[in-house]
Order: sequence, then C-alpha cells, then structure tokens
Amino acid sequence: MEITGLRDIFLSKEEYLNQEVCVSGWVRSNRDSKNFGFLTISDGTFFTPLQVVYHDEMANFGEIAKLGVGAAVIVSGKLIPTPEAKQEFELQAVEISVEGETQPDYPLQKKRHSLEYLRTIPHLRPRTNTFQAVFRIRSQIAYAIHSFFQERGFVYVHTPLITASDAEGAGEMFEVTTLPLNDVPMKDGCVDYSEDFFGKKTSLTVSGQLNGEAFAQAFRDIYTFGPTFRAEKSNTQRHAAEFWMIEPEMAFADLDDVMFIAEDMLKYIIQYVLVNAPEELEFLNQFVDKGLLERLQHIVKSDFARVSYTESVEMLEKVNDRFEYKVKWGSDLQTEHERYLTEEIYKCPVFVTDYPKDIKSFYMKLNEDGKTVAAVDCLVPGIGEIIGGSQREDDLDKLTKRMQELNMNMEDYQFYLDLRKYGSTRHGGFGLGFERAVMYITGMSNIRDVLPFPRTVGNCEL
Amino acid sequence: MEITGLRDIFLSKEEYLNQEVCVSGWVRSNRDSKNFGFLTISDGTFFTPLQVVYHDEMANFGEIAKLGVGAAVIVSGKLIPTPEAKQEFELQAVEISVEGETQPDYPLQKKRHSLEYLRTIPHLRPRTNTFQAVFRIRSQIAYAIHSFFQERGFVYVHTPLITASDAEGAGEMFEVTTLPLNDVPMKDGCVDYSEDFFGKKTSLTVSGQLNGEAFAQAFRDIYTFGPTFRAEKSNTQRHAAEFWMIEPEMAFADLDDVMFIAEDMLKYIIQYVLVNAPEELEFLNQFVDKGLLERLQHIVKSDFARVSYTESVEMLEKVNDRFEYKVKWGSDLQTEHERYLTEEIYKCPVFVTDYPKDIKSFYMKLNEDGKTVAAVDCLVPGIGEIIGGSQREDDLDKLTKRMQELNMNMEDYQFYLDLRKYGSTRHGGFGLGFERAVMYITGMSNIRDVLPFPRTVGNCEL
Repeated sequence: MEITGLRDIFLSKEEYLNQEVCVSGWVRSNRDSKNFGFLTISDGTFFTPLQVVYHDEMANFGEIAKLGVGAAVIVSGKLIPTPEAKQEFELQAVEISVEGETQPDYPLQKKRHSLEYLRTIPHLRPRTNTFQAVFRIRSQIAYAIHSFFQERGFVYVHTPLITASDAEGAGEMFEVTTLPLNDVPMKDGCVDYSEDFFGKKTSLTVSGQLNGEAFAQAFRDIYTFGPTFRAEKSNTQRHAAEFWMIEPEMAFADLDDVMFIAEDMLKYIIQYVLVNAPEELEFLNQFVDKGLLERLQHIVKSDFARVSYTESVEMLEKVNDRFEYKVKWGSDLQTEHERYLTEEIYKCPVFVTDYPKDIKSFYMKLNEDGKTVAAVDCLVPGIGEIIGGSQREDDLDKLTKRMQELNMNMEDYQFYLDLRKYGSTRHGGFGLGFERAVMYITGMSNIRDVLPFPRTVGNCEL
Repeated sequence: MEITGLRDIFLSKEEYLNQEVCVSGWVRSNRDSKNFGFLTISDGTFFTPLQVVYHDEMANFGEIAKLGVGAAVIVSGKLIPTPEAKQEFELQAVEISVEGETQPDYPLQKKRHSLEYLRTIPHLRPRTNTFQAVFRIRSQIAYAIHSFFQERGFVYVHTPLITASDAEGAGEMFEVTTLPLNDVPMKDGCVDYSEDFFGKKTSLTVSGQLNGEAFAQAFRDIYTFGPTFRAEKSNTQRHAAEFWMIEPEMAFADLDDVMFIAEDMLKYIIQYVLVNAPEELEFLNQFVDKGLLERLQHIVKSDFARVSYTESVEMLEKVNDRFEYKVKWGSDLQTEHERYLTEEIYKCPVFVTDYPKDIKSFYMKLNEDGKTVAAVDCLVPGIGEIIGGSQREDDLDKLTKRMQELNMNMEDYQFYLDLRKYGSTRHGGFGLGFERAVMYITGMSNIRDVLPFPRTVGNCEL
C-alpha cells in the first residue's frame, strides 16, 4: 500500500477519514498498557503528530510496545474520527513495521531541551517541535520571496560567491585559495597569487549588489538570493559568518519605488506564512514569543510610515536621556533608536530616508542638499532595521568624484562605471538579510537557531 | 504617467492597444529619415523589442535622431496596431526623454558578436538577445524547481557553504581562511589553524547531500538549491569552479521513488519554460541549436527508459568499435557511451541503475549481489548524464564496514552514522547540476555562457 504523507491526511482529512491508510514516521512518544498502546508519530510533513492506537492482536505487539522515541515505523490501519478526544482523529493500526530502531542514548528523549543544548546536535534538532516549525517556515519564506518577485517579472540572478573585488569594504572577507598554506609561494616579499587557482587574490562575497546592478541595466527588474559572508569576529545573537541575502535591483526606479516594493514584499511573505504555517506560528506564539502572531498580523495591515533621517534625529534628540548612545545629526542610528522610532513613536514599520552621505556607501545617490543620500532603512517593531536600500548614483561624474574622494581603486570598478556610461538609468534596490527575516517571522532571537548549520566565529560543525 | 513594462504590454496587448502608454527601455536600433524615425527599444522584461515611431514635431527630434545604441529612454505615446507590418503594433511617440546617453565606443553596436567576445564583457552581455534569452530562462528554471518541490511539500534547506568536512573526496576543494597568507602561523611544522576564523581547516563545499540527509530524516522530503565548488583545473566547456546544485533527499523512499521524482521534475521544468519563454526558445532554436525545441517537446512526452548498468554494458560492448574508450564491466561509462545509449539505442532519456560499487560513493546502498549499489544516472540525448542519484545505505553495520574499507575517518562522520542509529529509514536522493540543466534547456554548449559571472581556472572577473 502506498505511503500517504501526514500533510495530505491533515489537510484533506475528509478524503481519508474511515479509510484504510498507510503512513510512515518517527515515534515521538509511546504509551503502552497491558493489551494496547498509543504511539504518536511525526513524518515531518506536517506540524501536528498523528496518534496511532495499537493492540495485542498484532503479532509484533511486544516489539511495538517497547519501541523508543525516535524509532522509524510504517503503519497501516484505519483513520477513525475521535470527536470526544483532544485530537480530531486517530489511526487504528492493523500493522506496524519497524523501519529503523532507535537506541536508549537517543539525545531527544521526550522532554524539553534548551536551545543551547540543541545547537550541539544540529543534525538531530530538526526533529524537535521548535525546529520543525522554524525550518519549515524558513523554507516557506524562501519560496514566498521567489514567488513575490517572479510574479512581478523580476529575473533571478545568481551573482558570484567567489570574487576578486573587495566590494566597497562592506565587511571583513574570507580569503579563498588553493595555495598550500604550509608553503605559500612568495615573490618579492608578497604572496605570489599567480600560482593560485584564479591567478589572483580572491575572497567570498559580502554582497551581490554591484553585479546585480549590471543585470538590472539589462532586465530592468532583477533579484538575487544567495549566500554572503562576513569574517567579522563578533560573537552576537545576530551575526553569522555565512548567511543568505536577497538583493532586488530595479532600473527606471527611484527611492519611492524601492520603498513600495520593500513594503509589498514584507507583507507578502508574512501573509504567506500566516496562511501556510498556522500550526507552526501557533506553536511559536505559545512557546517562543508570546506577541508573535499579533505583531505579524498587525504588520500585514499597517501602512508603513515614512520619515527622513533628519526629522528622526530631531524627534529622538528630545528623548536622548532614554538612550545609552545619544542621538546626534551625522551619526548612525543604533538599534535602541531604531526600535524607539518604530515601537514607541510610530507603532508600526517605518522607512527612514535620506541619511548623511558620510555614514552610507559610495554608490548611493547624492541628494540636492549635497549632504544626504537617497538611502532608506526599513525599521520594524521588535528588531529595528530589517532592510537597507537606496537609490544609486546614476551620474557618471558624481559617482567618479565620490569614489575619488574615498580613494577607491577606479580600475576595479570600471565595469560599474560602464553602467553609468552606456544608457544609465535612475535605479535602486535594497538588501534583506534572510535570517533576520526568518528570526522576525518565527520570533527566534538567536541567528544560530534559524540557520540549519550555523557558521560563527570558532564554530563550523558538520 | 506611470511606466508600463513591455512584458505587460505584449502579454496583455488588448488592454493597451489604442491607448496612451508610457514605456522605458534601452535603444537597440535607431533609423531616422528626414522628418521621422524608428527606435526599437527593449526594457528587459520581454524578449521582443518594441518599435517606436517619432516625428519632427517633437521639440527634441534632433537629439532623438542622433541617439545611439544602448541609450536609455522614456517614451510616452499611443500604441497603434500595425496589421500590415512585421510587428503587431508600434508606439507612436508623443514625447521621448533621454534617461541616459550612450557613447560611440559602446561595445554592443548593432551587429552579431561572438560568444567568446561577449564573455569579456559579462556586465554588458545580458543586454544581447542571446543572453536575454539564456538568463531569463535560467531564472525561470530556478523558479520552476522551487515550485515543483514546494508544491509537493518538500522543505527547502540551505546546507552550509563553508565546511570542515572533506565530503567524501568528491572533488578538490577551495580552502577558506582568514590567516594572513604572507605570514601563516605554524606550529610543529604544520599550519596552526587554531588561529583561523573557525579554529580549524575549512573549505568550500562540494555537496550538501550529507547535511541534506539529516534534514530528510526529520522532514521526510527536502531539497537543497545552492552553490557548490570544485577547485579542479579542468578547462572544459562543462566545468566551472562555482556552480549551483539541486539535491533533493527523501526518507521512506527507494531507488524507484528517486527515479520517479527525477523524471517528473525534469518534465516539469521543461514544460514550465516551454509555456513561459516561447519567444526565447524560438530564438535559441533558430540561432543557437536547431533541434532544441523538438528535443524539449519530445522529452516532455517521453516515458524515460530504465536499464541496469550490467545490461547497458552488454549492449555497448557489441558496438565497442565505435568508441574511443572501450566499454568493460567495472569501469565508468564515458559521455560517448552515455550518449550512444540515450541517442541511438533508446532515443529518449534513460535511467541507468545499479553500478559497480567500486566506481560509486561510499554512501550508496549495497545491492544483494554484493557487487553493485543502488545508484542511478539519468542520461539525456545531446548531453549524456544530467542527474546522478542513489538510494543510500541505511544499515549502520554495512555503512560502517564500507567506510572502514575505504579508510575513512569515522569521527568526521559520526553525525552521519547517527542518522542510521536513531530511526534509520530507507532513503535516497539525487543531484542535478543546475548549469547543466540550463545548458540543456537553452542549447548553449559552454557553461561560461549560462553563468552570469563564470568562475573557471584562471578566470574570476567582476
């Protein structure tokens, strides 16, 4: 008999009730009495487990009664409504075969484990309720992002991971090499990269934006969705060495268009998860973050506020005594300021625009005031900045001048300047840190708990 | 007036004909007569360009008449049906504003350029017809893969890129480090990795499969879709140092299930492109690969054949005089053999199963004959192997024995053995090289022409 997934059974239960079915899964619990018992099993396709009832009429009753948590089974029987019970239905087993046994030292016995402990077993933690919820939602958010952009005609571009550029010094980089580290070839006191795989020094990318811009100048609307890397030794709850980023880029678009698409995208992915993972969100709302569901539902209905950096600073300066870091025009907003703006002042997501040029990247479009650039950060309650974007400088002369001011190596950026030389357009885009979005939508507070196999300083397990 | 994308106009033309519209794009050609002229413009959202007619009633007629290829413009006017002409409609411009000029040295003047030349300008080649077609189809294939798996409840898993494992020696690896290469810290004659970012030697992954298996043992059906790396110095049309792979993995599944899902997936993505990129495929069929459309349409309708490696060898040995490399039981099939099987014998895609264990990976399930493993390669006409998969060894003792035979470091694989210790299930999966699929579906013969910014030995531009 063909195996049916629990997702099918739970989502189309009318088709299966009072029918013979065959299911598979892993044992979450096993309670046996004298001549019958209950297994709860999960097959990983649906959040809610299935209750299986077994009786001593089965030839292998003894074996089943002794089955431990984590064992894999295949069960056939009849799905029976149980209107009196907590669960809506149960499977009355006719046959249970043991697919794979477990061992008494199985690390996930039926009890609550701390997230810290679960981080030590990244290969097993996806079997727990919390990580079933987190990683299914992670997958759904990824798909929602693709759907959002593809439905709007954006072309998905795989920008390269290995790069010879230092990408405007956005962060410290990992070097990529095939040179023997115990015998690095040297020439005139320097590393002889001519013997390296690419014949030059290469690193792991910190952003695909500049490459993405080249494709936006051909396809108009594009997005990237791929891994990025930071070799920063900051050991915080929010930093990982390897994480995923989404970077849409749009030609013939200005800062308003950037904000419009960012707001639309955030609402779209949250709505997608609300519709497709209600059991998971319910669980996370109950056990991980009590305000989660309310916050998500609120965002979907909000109109995001818009305010300039300069106005924000004026508002924040009035309450400077609340902050550890005092706000002053010209310095970057800290998380405490961002959260105050979005949580206390606006009580909804807010776009802060037009930051001082000196705290932003070289490629951002200079505003007419000569002091600020057309940058935007999107701040959300509970987290602060979730998206950073800008309109890009599309004027060849202004861009060249800014790069010279910053002593950048123009030769490395010739391709980028070409985009301003041949059919330049107003254009812009933003970056969304994927894990930050997953943390926000699941309520998890440590980035290590939303990455399947997190890489952080000193930690590269499995 | 709001800018409308050419994709909208071409796909919903009834809504726009005889209406005022505003469009944007880049000039592909400009023919001017005394008092009128024709621009063809492309905005990158649709393959077919739009013809724009302009007249000397416009104040900036002189400027427009001189516009070169590559310039960016915004045009408003009326969309008029042209039943007598080659194109179905044209835009009669009322106003054309120049968004960004171009220069006489623009490298993409209106003429055919060789693919080799275009590889030297990866930031501009997406503006050509060929690469408009290739990279839009690449994006569509990626999305079709996500849709295929998500519709079937597979969970998308981001397996890590930086890894401390040598992943069963599947290929040479790039090392990832933050150690200063001009002064590598040494200890007892070896590199002192305790000072490196992760405190140990790390590399770029060659496969996410082993990590994917851990998630399949929790979610049943999962897939990965991410970059993988090979530091092999093979300078061929089919090898890149950085490429993308899709690796689905299914618990409670055997080799039949693997073949079923692989066949279904290939047909799904080809069908998706046939429906969503007809203009692009038509172009590629005409200018790149004459048999392309017929081949794709044929595959969608074929039932893939199935044959064992042993039977294949028997058939191929009979025609051994045709081959450069002679076929013999025990050695791997070469591309010439694979193509003969799929093109000459079966004339359709074919799954070859049950290869000798010694030419396959340690994790493949040993068949009862003790000589072969439950491996499968999917061969397609015109290319040979496009997918490789297997049922995995799920028996702890057999897997341990095989790994010991191969002198593998058991400690590195403890997590992988755990999956067989706690609730092991029959399971399997496959790997699809994404670029190979893109090459197959676009007819492009060099992997450098399906990667946005290809990385190959000695080449890491932009």
